[in-house]
Amino acid sequence: MFPLKEIVYEANMELYRRGLVVLTWGNVSQVDRERGIVAIKPSGVPYESMTPEQIVLIDLASGRPVEDGLNPSSDAPTHLALYRAFPQLGGVTHTHSTCATAWAQAGREIPCLGTTHADSFRGAVPLARFLTPEETEDAYEANTGKVIVEAFAQRDPMHTPAVLTRGHGPFTWGKDAMDSVRNAVVLEEVARMAMMTLAINPGAAALPDHIADKHFMRKHGPHAYYGQQPR
Amino acid sequence: MFPLKEIVYEANMELYRRGLVVLTWGNVSQVDRERGIVAIKPSGVPYESMTPEQIVLIDLASGRPVEDGLNPSSDAPTHLALYRAFPQLGGVTHTHSTCATAWAQAGREIPCLGTTHADSFRGAVPLARFLTPEETEDAYEANTGKVIVEAFAQRDPMHTPAVLTRGHGPFTWGKDAMDSVRNAVVLEEVARMAMMTLAINPGAAALPDHIADKHFMRKHGPHAYYGQQPR
Amino acid sequence: MFPLKEIVYEANMELYRRGLVVLTWGNVSQVDRERGIVAIKPSGVPYESMTPEQIVLIDLASGRPVEDGLNPSSDAPTHLALYRAFPQLGGVTHTHSTCATAWAQAGREIPCLGTTHADSFRGAVPLARFLTPEETEDAYEANTGKVIVEAFAQRDPMHTPAVLTRGHGPFTWGKDAMDSVRNAVVLEEVARMAMMTLAINPGAAALPDHIADKHFMRKHGPHAYYGQQPR
Amino acid sequence: MFPLKEIVYEANMELYRRGLVVLTWGNVSQVDRERGIVAIKPSGVPYESMTPEQIVLIDLASGRPVEDGLNPSSDAPTHLALYRAFPQLGGVTHTHSTCATAWAQAGREIPCLGTTHADSFRGAVPLARFLTPEETEDAYEANTGKVIVEAFAQRDPMHTPAVLTRGHGPFTWGKDAMDSVRNAVVLEEVARMAMMTLAINPGAAALPDHIADKHFMRKHGPHAYYGQQPR
Repeated sequence: MFPLKEIVYEANMELYRRGLVVLTWGNVSQVDRERGIVAIKPSGVPYESMTPEQIVLIDLASGRPVEDGLNPSSDAPTHLALYRAFPQLGGVTHTHSTCATAWAQAGREIPCLGTTHADSFRGAVPLARFLTPEETEDAYEANTGKVIVEAFAQRDPMHTPAVLTRGHGPFTWGKDAMDSVRNAVVLEEVARMAMMTLAINPGAAALPDHIADKHFMRKHGPHAYYGQQPR
Repeated sequence: MFPLKEIVYEANMELYRRGLVVLTWGNVSQVDRERGIVAIKPSGVPYESMTPEQIVLIDLASGRPVEDGLNPSSDAPTHLALYRAFPQLGGVTHTHSTCATAWAQAGREIPCLGTTHADSFRGAVPLARFLTPEETEDAYEANTGKVIVEAFAQRDPMHTPAVLTRGHGPFTWGKDAMDSVRNAVVLEEVARMAMMTLAINPGAAALPDHIADKHFMRKHGPHAYYGQQPR
Repeated sequence: MFPLKEIVYEANMELYRRGLVVLTWGNVSQVDRERGIVAIKPSGVPYESMTPEQIVLIDLASGRPVEDGLNPSSDAPTHLALYRAFPQLGGVTHTHSTCATAWAQAGREIPCLGTTHADSFRGAVPLARFLTPEETEDAYEANTGKVIVEAFAQRDPMHTPAVLTRGHGPFTWGKDAMDSVRNAVVLEEVARMAMMTLAINPGAAALPDHIADKHFMRKHGPHAYYGQQPR
Repeated sequence: MFPLKEIVYEANMELYRRGLVVLTWGNVSQVDRERGIVAIKPSGVPYESMTPEQIVLIDLASGRPVEDGLNPSSDAPTHLALYRAFPQLGGVTHTHSTCATAWAQAGREIPCLGTTHADSFRGAVPLARFLTPEETEDAYEANTGKVIVEAFAQRDPMHTPAVLTRGHGPFTWGKDAMDSVRNAVVLEEVARMAMMTLAINPGAAALPDHIADKHFMRKHGPHAYYGQQPR
């Protein structure tokens, strides 16, 4: 079996184990840039019974299936649009996780209110706009990718590896599938904390820039000192 | 044993496993239209000790028990009223799940605020009115069914397979018992997200119609492309 | 071993399994009216390591230990005051369960906003007043029982088997220890739903009396028809 | 193996089991005052795969590692600052637990709204100020310890063994590592209850002093009568 299937299966199951999934909602993919192939969850298959063999392989350029098998996630064209626009991406996760989706439905970007946010996301988690009737009618899922890319016109997607699609839910990404799942876990917790923060103090202000920058850089900057450095 | 008992037992246990049940609250039924029989949870029996044999069979037309056994759920007359009024229904679920019940107590229908809602329910989840003193005094549970049917005078029950009974809690339905349980799971999550959405932005607007319609149709329309099509 | 110890041990463990306990907070007791003995959880013993033998027996009249052993829960004098004032009580539960305690801290009785509440509690769950400095200084726990009894001057404790002690938390009771635990479970869920109801609609009104009465009577009245009647 | 490693490993795992940890966030330490050594969680190591051997030993005075091994938690300088300033401390815990962090992000100290709070913390849980750009630039983590110590200029750290660092999250402490974990559990529950209390009643007042004092003293005063006294 193509090893990417096993990797993507494990990342999807991690999403499920982390409690970010209700029924069949949510999907994780990873790209093999060299071969131009993306592996992604099949559409509508319950996590409880999914097998690594059922993971679907599609062509990065055309979006067509590479072999006989199940239909890919209906969100596959969104994943493909992100891989094509952002060459640094290795993995993408989409969920309907409760709190992040509530922010998407509220039509609000998630402000950076604390260091938990700043450790993983630089600045607010942006909100991609609603699709127009024309964008919705045809190629809805690919156009969802298009409006996400629009939202990053002035942003580095690797510094803020998360977005809310308005009225829908979050997409996160990372260097590989598992990294994108980790960012989905962080985003849900950050969204929960932000909602509670505003409940306690509706006027809560964003974290001062000098602290937000410090936290981002100590984890991601050239002189990062969080975790264990490779030797 | 009548096979419907096993099916309805499994659907009730699924409701329990999904965390929608506190103590003995909640019940699931399924109808066998050919035989005119409904199988439903017995009244007041804890899920932890319930057996398939204890599922109660009642006559769809008369509501009377078909065999010796336990009393059916006290909500059985509501289930029967729904099966009689809506011939497409195969299964019905009633719960006191926390967030959906909070909306019922708040006296508010659940507006369609996002695609998670639109994927399963067309338009708002409606709120059935309070029963009058007269309707409460006699045949309370059957009249609960009556006011639900009233709330669907202008709605297709298969497009919006859920309702809130005011001050009480949700009923959901579907093509069979397990499908009605799935809709109960979705409704609770949709109710939780809607509550949080309004907490974040009290002025959050309903999802634009063109997006709500798109999501409903890609899952339920004649050209549905979500999931795996039968071959 | 005195059989009451085993019964009270099981009820305390049920409280723990239901998730109403953090660390060592919470305690359950049951009275043997014939022998004049109350069995109660020992003070400060973790649920994870508690054994039936450690349950403490105290004299209902004097409050003194009946045998050598651990100290009873520091709330024992409150339990005793309730058993003495309300002769119908068989079991008492005290918790710091999250939502019920939040209402006690908010200084608000819990209004009857729905049928889940009405099924178990007649009218609002009352709020016992703060103790005065004098009542706090000496016999604090016995005086906690005294202000609870005050709050029931115009109420039947068996119709509303729950109270909030202001700034502290809930006490519930019932025909035996396990019944008081069940009421603690119901109260916590009712408190959670009421909090959410007001979040969705701050002006939510109490359930109309005719519906509240119907629900209470179908479970507890002389013509109760919920559950399985003894034959 | 140095026995302190096993103790600190167990306390870190208890923090994880109590559900206060997301991914690798959070760390627990304990000091051996006689040897001048602090044992602390390694940086960025997942709880699921951590072993007692990986616990890091550092010198209390210099902060330097005592032996070859992994990097200590990046928050180690904050722990050290607390041990140096407060000689009564035996253990320190840092988390990003959801509700306590929401209060830290809201920029609010947690008022004492009930006896659950008063049982463990005397008065409000204080809020340490934001660090200045200068304090952030260099020795950020040690300066986090400095502003915590500032917040206790007029407070006894053993009476209120918890603090919120503004925009970041809670630190708790105690007589040893496990005691600091217990205080982290209590703080999270107290923070959750306080948030809910204000949601129910935005004007909820602090617990009267005579009751707060009573609760603190019955657990911690010279005549404490909670729990089992040593014989």
